[in-house]
Amino acid sequence: MYLAVRARSLSLVEGLTPEDMGLQSMEDASPAKWHLAHTSWFFEQFILKEHVTDYASPDDRFAFLFNSYYVQMGPRHTRSNRGLISRPDVDAVLAYRSHVDAAMLKLLAEGGPEAQIIQELATLGCHHEMQHQELLVTDLLHALSYNPLLPAYREPSPRNVTEAAPLGWIDHDGGLVEIGYDGDGFAYDCEGPRHKTYLRPFRLASRLVTNGDWIHFMEAGGYETAEHWLSDGWARREREGWDAPLYWWQQDGQWWSYTLRGPRPVDLNAPVVHVSYYEAEAFARWSGKRLPTEAEWEVVARDYPIKGNFLNSGNYHPTTPQDPDDTQLWGDVWEWTQSPFTPYPGFRAPKGAVGEYNGKFMCNQFVLRGGSCATPSDQMRPTYRTFFYPHQRWQMLGLRLADDV
Amino acid sequence: MYLAVRARSLSLVEGLTPEDMGLQSMEDASPAKWHLAHTSWFFEQFILKEHVTDYASPDDRFAFLFNSYYVQMGPRHTRSNRGLISRPDVDAVLAYRSHVDAAMLKLLAEGGPEAQIIQELATLGCHHEMQHQELLVTDLLHALSYNPLLPAYREPSPRNVTEAAPLGWIDHDGGLVEIGYDGDGFAYDCEGPRHKTYLRPFRLASRLVTNGDWIHFMEAGGYETAEHWLSDGWARREREGWDAPLYWWQQDGQWWSYTLRGPRPVDLNAPVVHVSYYEAEAFARWSGKRLPTEAEWEVVARDYPIKGNFLNSGNYHPTTPQDPDDTQLWGDVWEWTQSPFTPYPGFRAPKGAVGEYNGKFMCNQFVLRGGSCATPSDQMRPTYRTFFYPHQRWQMLGLRLADDV
Amino acid sequence: MYLAVRARSLSLVEGLTPEDMGLQSMEDASPAKWHLAHTSWFFEQFILKEHVTDYASPDDRFAFLFNSYYVQMGPRHTRSNRGLISRPDVDAVLAYRSHVDAAMLKLLAEGGPEAQIIQELATLGCHHEMQHQELLVTDLLHALSYNPLLPAYREPSPRNVTEAAPLGWIDHDGGLVEIGYDGDGFAYDCEGPRHKTYLRPFRLASRLVTNGDWIHFMEAGGYETAEHWLSDGWARREREGWDAPLYWWQQDGQWWSYTLRGPRPVDLNAPVVHVSYYEAEAFARWSGKRLPTEAEWEVVARDYPIKGNFLNSGNYHPTTPQDPDDTQLWGDVWEWTQSPFTPYPGFRAPKGAVGEYNGKFMCNQFVLRGGSCATPSDQMRPTYRTFFYPHQRWQMLGLRLADDV
Amino acid sequence: MYLAVRARSLSLVEGLTPEDMGLQSMEDASPAKWHLAHTSWFFEQFILKEHVTDYASPDDRFAFLFNSYYVQMGPRHTRSNRGLISRPDVDAVLAYRSHVDAAMLKLLAEGGPEAQIIQELATLGCHHEMQHQELLVTDLLHALSYNPLLPAYREPSPRNVTEAAPLGWIDHDGGLVEIGYDGDGFAYDCEGPRHKTYLRPFRLASRLVTNGDWIHFMEAGGYETAEHWLSDGWARREREGWDAPLYWWQQDGQWWSYTLRGPRPVDLNAPVVHVSYYEAEAFARWSGKRLPTEAEWEVVARDYPIKGNFLNSGNYHPTTPQDPDDTQLWGDVWEWTQSPFTPYPGFRAPKGAVGEYNGKFMCNQFVLRGGSCATPSDQMRPTYRTFFYPHQRWQMLGLRLADDV
Repeated sequence: MYLAVRARSLSLVEGLTPEDMGLQSMEDASPAKWHLAHTSWFFEQFILKEHVTDYASPDDRFAFLFNSYYVQMGPRHTRSNRGLISRPDVDAVLAYRSHVDAAMLKLLAEGGPEAQIIQELATLGCHHEMQHQELLVTDLLHALSYNPLLPAYREPSPRNVTEAAPLGWIDHDGGLVEIGYDGDGFAYDCEGPRHKTYLRPFRLASRLVTNGDWIHFMEAGGYETAEHWLSDGWARREREGWDAPLYWWQQDGQWWSYTLRGPRPVDLNAPVVHVSYYEAEAFARWSGKRLPTEAEWEVVARDYPIKGNFLNSGNYHPTTPQDPDDTQLWGDVWEWTQSPFTPYPGFRAPKGAVGEYNGKFMCNQFVLRGGSCATPSDQMRPTYRTFFYPHQRWQMLGLRLADDV
Repeated sequence: MYLAVRARSLSLVEGLTPEDMGLQSMEDASPAKWHLAHTSWFFEQFILKEHVTDYASPDDRFAFLFNSYYVQMGPRHTRSNRGLISRPDVDAVLAYRSHVDAAMLKLLAEGGPEAQIIQELATLGCHHEMQHQELLVTDLLHALSYNPLLPAYREPSPRNVTEAAPLGWIDHDGGLVEIGYDGDGFAYDCEGPRHKTYLRPFRLASRLVTNGDWIHFMEAGGYETAEHWLSDGWARREREGWDAPLYWWQQDGQWWSYTLRGPRPVDLNAPVVHVSYYEAEAFARWSGKRLPTEAEWEVVARDYPIKGNFLNSGNYHPTTPQDPDDTQLWGDVWEWTQSPFTPYPGFRAPKGAVGEYNGKFMCNQFVLRGGSCATPSDQMRPTYRTFFYPHQRWQMLGLRLADDV
Repeated sequence: MYLAVRARSLSLVEGLTPEDMGLQSMEDASPAKWHLAHTSWFFEQFILKEHVTDYASPDDRFAFLFNSYYVQMGPRHTRSNRGLISRPDVDAVLAYRSHVDAAMLKLLAEGGPEAQIIQELATLGCHHEMQHQELLVTDLLHALSYNPLLPAYREPSPRNVTEAAPLGWIDHDGGLVEIGYDGDGFAYDCEGPRHKTYLRPFRLASRLVTNGDWIHFMEAGGYETAEHWLSDGWARREREGWDAPLYWWQQDGQWWSYTLRGPRPVDLNAPVVHVSYYEAEAFARWSGKRLPTEAEWEVVARDYPIKGNFLNSGNYHPTTPQDPDDTQLWGDVWEWTQSPFTPYPGFRAPKGAVGEYNGKFMCNQFVLRGGSCATPSDQMRPTYRTFFYPHQRWQMLGLRLADDV
Repeated sequence: MYLAVRARSLSLVEGLTPEDMGLQSMEDASPAKWHLAHTSWFFEQFILKEHVTDYASPDDRFAFLFNSYYVQMGPRHTRSNRGLISRPDVDAVLAYRSHVDAAMLKLLAEGGPEAQIIQELATLGCHHEMQHQELLVTDLLHALSYNPLLPAYREPSPRNVTEAAPLGWIDHDGGLVEIGYDGDGFAYDCEGPRHKTYLRPFRLASRLVTNGDWIHFMEAGGYETAEHWLSDGWARREREGWDAPLYWWQQDGQWWSYTLRGPRPVDLNAPVVHVSYYEAEAFARWSGKRLPTEAEWEVVARDYPIKGNFLNSGNYHPTTPQDPDDTQLWGDVWEWTQSPFTPYPGFRAPKGAVGEYNGKFMCNQFVLRGGSCATPSDQMRPTYRTFFYPHQRWQMLGLRLADDV
């Protein structure tokens, strides 16, 4: 697993120039070079420095440069200035990765009394790196979108010719159910404890909302009608001038969008992507439906196998399923739920531990479920919760409708 | 009820000058004059204009000036500029109130086929006015706090001599419970539908967190230790420079606070007030406890009679109960819960109705329960949900600890 | 003089309500009540407290509240929050004025060894108060403009029927001239020293730019054509959305403006007013002309008697002269010059003195000359320099063209 | 000249990585890569496309990417996002330079009827490129300063051991003088017309203000005493938290600064650099002196030969002159004058011409004179005016005192 995850990170930067890898287009995003370095730092900091007596870093200052929450050094050296760290350069960062890899592989091969804990930490490091793989490609899309030439990250792919399936519904009886993780494998702290929750009967749409659906909303004045919107959403829409999903523009009477495969006409049959919670919620309200809760999503989705259009597929954008029975519950786009990201009953943030970092974000964000075309499939679980602020759009974010029965 | 509510609004502005009544110190707040006018407009707009054939307003332009969500007229005439509407002056607004009262009393006395609907709307108007009574006094406190003379709204009251009760706990077994409104009386849309929810065993503190408790937190470095804080909370704390509750300052080695009764030394035994959600959550985390959910609060509090230190008591600030068994579940301060303000299962915002206004705020805010020393007691119910953004502090906001059992 | 100036301040607030007198619509402006109090404080602080042994202020805290540059008390008590000081109220401020007047009149009548210095300071206090009279009416116009009812400060006046004179030119040979004050009367520090400066031959327009001229500029795309504008001006125009002078709007195909006499159709023959330096400069460039320098203006204007449409006329807005030979060099509108407000050669800011306050503003502002319809005529001199930032528009600011010969 | 100028640009990026060359740390600055491309674009756009019939650009889109004032394409593609254009990469930009050079050299060698105009434009292009050379190194210093490692652009140089000369004065009688350009060589439009101006007797300091002088100012509370400062300067100081020149910090009781040769202890004898106009003006006022006007500077400096510590010296920071009689009027640091950047009498901005770009900046900026250690010496003339906003500090900006006699 270690080798596979580490190799995938490198494959994601194939074809990028050093200049590409240094780009940072907003505080929420980081340069590709930083992602490569930070994920290596994680193994160095929490495993090699702790468990290898004579481990020596290629440069002790990297510990400071590539820590995501390093001690504040005044306004010059903040998260939003990661793109200004031109040195160490890409070559030095790649050498750093190799150095860490060599030490890790030696350590993992050794066995010994600490093998168990080292293996657990290495698993965490791999999951951590997979999260950064997703960020790497979406941050890159965001950064390249500022280039007026709209360069393609990967070669353009052929146009889709499959029609979206008609909208159906998956019914569920509700009742007292259990959600959350309680297995023996890897999971983040915020996925547990497993707990009971009561659901009314409900149903989920049998497929994702498509670009075609979204254009109906736009043509019906969805972006101009305050009554569909949450109050904060409307204010944000006005401030940002939103009138379509991120990366869309109109040209010669047609909608285009910028993707990791360059500019493309918007595919009406593909799932809509790059919409904020505010837009998703307005769309649902306009539809006379609503967004699902995360519990509703989880009790339905766990009965479906985890396969779909993930990062591994190499599409880099959401697609229309070949099989009309494909529910797309897994992959393509993260699905906004109406559930704020809050602690599950009985949750306590672990103290001082490596993996404690979810608890402090439990405010002002919403849960999304199911993974996307930028998510490595091996990090998915039915209980996996990701979370973003309701105004954010640069990730692969879409939606599925739900309804009361 | 109509007479009592309307009279109370006038009693709240007794002793204020026209200058006082025009103050608006931030966008979240409104001038006292505007509150007096807007609550009258509500009766005029939804009852008199609808149900009195020959009703004539003293000035048709008031409909436009005193509507809280009037159509945007460009940046000059926005909510944040209510304090710039010097005309009509206070006398004209008081005349407007009298005009509306005369028409309303005549209408309410008439009976007739529409008596039922009129009475329901009048009840809504009274509850609406009670909400504005609370805002009137808290907005006024905020505005007067910008006067370097720190004037008193009401005469200073004697110092408290009662000690706070020791902290105890109220236990609850949890299980599948029902919360939310389903009675015949008045309630806001967001209080329903009544629905089942599952609770683990828990307990609530037997009293509110006091100023003395809070000073322990401050002295333990609570405001300077990032690990106690939510990420967004810490960022806000840094931006605003928070190091104590709103309206507090240190003078000759003692903490003072500005209140509606003028500057006072902080009373260690009284409940802490004017703290944001971020501060309340950090305090709870530092305590090794947590905030209650709104369901936990409701299933406990509904077994206690609704009496306490409300606006009617005329204290205008939270107090230490005389009776050590007094739980303070009602009155004194609104209690932050850890529950985001979201729709209850099955909730649908009513369309076009008079009372629809809660649905669009169901994002980014947290629920508070129990009412405060600025809340008229007659609007309280066990199901009453108020909500504020996690950074807001100008209302009478405090907290009670909870814990898992 | 003292009596006349003090009486004029009171006459300017006749008909205003206490609410009107508390309005502050931006940091640059102050409430009428504050102007009344601050000008009284000036006499109290610099004359009464210094020269009357047993002088007692009605409230020692006024010294602090009504000082324009009082020591910073943190963000709550800043210049932009003057509108939040509801107490003392208007009655208390009027009583304060009476108290100061009584003490001043007694002192001025006494004579004695300090009579000379007292008289000089009283003269300064009167000139200071005249400056605030101008601000009082223009600040009030700005504040009332935020009221959607657009109330009139003074009764509407009849429409103008006089045509603007055709544009002629006043020629000047240039050469080595002297400008600046060196007389025995009152003048501000920045008006001196009198000094030599060399001028090329030039000419000034024989009248002010009119609203009709300005509409030509607007219709020629003046507000949409970057090449007419200074770089900073264009950026400001974009940020603020300027497309006409301040207080203008279009209604039924006609331009209207809000004035101290209420809303009025724009009078094509009257001088344009409420334009920034950026707009004035763009207009001049578009015209193929330029703005005058302050030296050019002074050497021409000092040959014309100081009479025109000043505050004393009671018009409260610029007017079309009856006499086609009237140059309008005095009154109507302050005329933007192309001269930055800089120290004259040999200028040194006096230390610690009462009148030192001009030196520190000698940066980023431009000089205007000639006084306006809001300026008391008795403060005018040919050497009088006022100054505003190039983006400001709320004063009575207009322009006259100049050209090289 | 063409070859020399073009070669110097390349020499300035020697040793830089592609990552370094893409950095943009603020809107005022541009990446080194952009400077290299934009200066080539200038020759292509104004010479090759106009005068070479079959000229073909390597990529027509470069015309758009590397124009400094390209048509606004919405908020994504603004000047502040130049650092996000990773493609074309550095290699492509270097190839673009070679392509342009080959075409230019061929054209310059051809002669023909347009040779004169081509040569004039090429001269302008060279001067334009020299301006960008200065920006390239100062922008780079600014960008690298955000790297916590504080990397050195060029190898550290030995510490200075020369003492600064004592402060003397250069006297001038004043009178009616002429300044401004009227020769046959190259000069920017804003340097003319040559014109008469009248000066009072004055004197200039015989050397620049040193770091040692500046530390006296700091230790005397210069940064904490409002009375030394212009009002706008004080406000800026508070907002930005200035307490020393840009790039300074204190470490173990000593002042250090970051330079193009890496971190260095502040050299007390070297000229102070990276101070804003606001700071320079406050220093002068605190000294009991003043800044010179640009006319004063010009009439003195034109009698001294143009030699000194320019970019050509390869120091990359200001130095202490070996010769105590060295006035440092040329090189080391640009000297703030008290003259706002305004048009000279008779100046008219040329229409549509290549070199018109100075006129629109004649507002809110101050003139500096004499060139700096980042200025190529061959672009200096006694009449050369550069200009910056009074808050800017990232250029090599210092000061010399002046006084009345």
